[in-house]
Amino acid sequence: MPNSKDDVYGDHISHKFNDELMELKTEFLKMGGVVESQVEQAIQALMDSDGQLAEQVRARDKDVDQMERGLDEEATLIIARRQPTARDLRLVVSVIKMVADLERVGDEAKKIAKLALKLAEEGQAPRGYVEVRHIGNHVLGMLHDALDAFARLDSEQALRIMKEDKWVDEEYQAAARTLLTFMMEDTRNISRCMSVMWVLRALERVGDHACNIAENVIFMVKGEDVRHTPMEEAEKVVGR
Amino acid sequence: MPNSKDDVYGDHISHKFNDELMELKTEFLKMGGVVESQVEQAIQALMDSDGQLAEQVRARDKDVDQMERGLDEEATLIIARRQPTARDLRLVVSVIKMVADLERVGDEAKKIAKLALKLAEEGQAPRGYVEVRHIGNHVLGMLHDALDAFARLDSEQALRIMKEDKWVDEEYQAAARTLLTFMMEDTRNISRCMSVMWVLRALERVGDHACNIAENVIFMVKGEDVRHTPMEEAEKVVGR
Repeated sequence: MPNSKDDVYGDHISHKFNDELMELKTEFLKMGGVVESQVEQAIQALMDSDGQLAEQVRARDKDVDQMERGLDEEATLIIARRQPTARDLRLVVSVIKMVADLERVGDEAKKIAKLALKLAEEGQAPRGYVEVRHIGNHVLGMLHDALDAFARLDSEQALRIMKEDKWVDEEYQAAARTLLTFMMEDTRNISRCMSVMWVLRALERVGDHACNIAENVIFMVKGEDVRHTPMEEAEKVVGR
Repeated sequence: MPNSKDDVYGDHISHKFNDELMELKTEFLKMGGVVESQVEQAIQALMDSDGQLAEQVRARDKDVDQMERGLDEEATLIIARRQPTARDLRLVVSVIKMVADLERVGDEAKKIAKLALKLAEEGQAPRGYVEVRHIGNHVLGMLHDALDAFARLDSEQALRIMKEDKWVDEEYQAAARTLLTFMMEDTRNISRCMSVMWVLRALERVGDHACNIAENVIFMVKGEDVRHTPMEEAEKVVGR
């Protein structure tokens, strides 16, 4: 009588292999959690002019880098030892790609933390922080949902994230125009507004990486590469 | 009597496998060549206010995306069919990672082309173009050398590229300061200088991606991951 685990993973050579794949998934989600909190805290450090928190974010980026190396190694070992095919191989290859995205999100968090330190030192009243808070919340939600879509292999949720990227780009464009106006009003604003502009750019990149993760989730589930395809095409793939 | 090809690839199961690996390398280098010329022409379009050339660069980004998909598919197929291990596996996994870098360099070229169009429309005398030309040449050289290091599996050349990234960052910082001064001198400069600033940032990112490729070359040749390690550590790895 087959037990339920066998039903789900019936095509795997061994339970050990299942365990390794599960472990890879778990470690990836752990890295995702750390990176999420890095972005969150970098934004918080900026909002509160909290130099100490900003320093913490910068220091913790080393952990993110370490997790990247560990996951890459684990994924490559699984390929070498277990020679996965089909869906399993797609999972492992996708993890290798998505780990690079997470590491870059970590880098963006570090950049934001650095700019938070700079802005805290200058100590002037914030302009453009409303925009940072707004876009920050948006991309953090996308990142969270992308990781969640991966955890549950939910291609429909992944599709929703892909659609949201357009909104982030528009919000970013609008925020950049607002900051440009501040700069033109008073040249003393320029340097600080530039820093806020870099923060916005970093956040916009976080949204891009969340999208990349979402595209990989669709690839894992559906076996089709929806990068650079029109949205209607991606919708058809997910609807199948 | 073993022929020379058997000597070099003696550990492969079949000549067909060799051919597939060679083909993957060739296709990767082809994509690298296209991406290189995209960056080059995007800079040229900016310098010459050549809207037509800028449009060509934007249109050709679709080819780059297509090449990314093709290479990813080919690499995954090789893993599934040939189950490579050791050095061969490192090559295939590295190609998957480096293809993502090349695609992003292509995106940066597209961004530069877009900004070139915007700046050409505004039609004012260029400020900061000296800096663009200078940093552009530098990162183009790095990208070219990184692809060359991959073609020849030359870890020492790869190490040299890693070292150069620091210089690009410094050049970028200096150029950003210069542009900030232009903006403060006259608020009418702000919008245009911002565009040039984004171009510089895009170029700096090209340098980062060249570095990533270089790190992968060292990984392929030496089997060690030198990302996020101090330069002395990387030197030791390459010196072995």
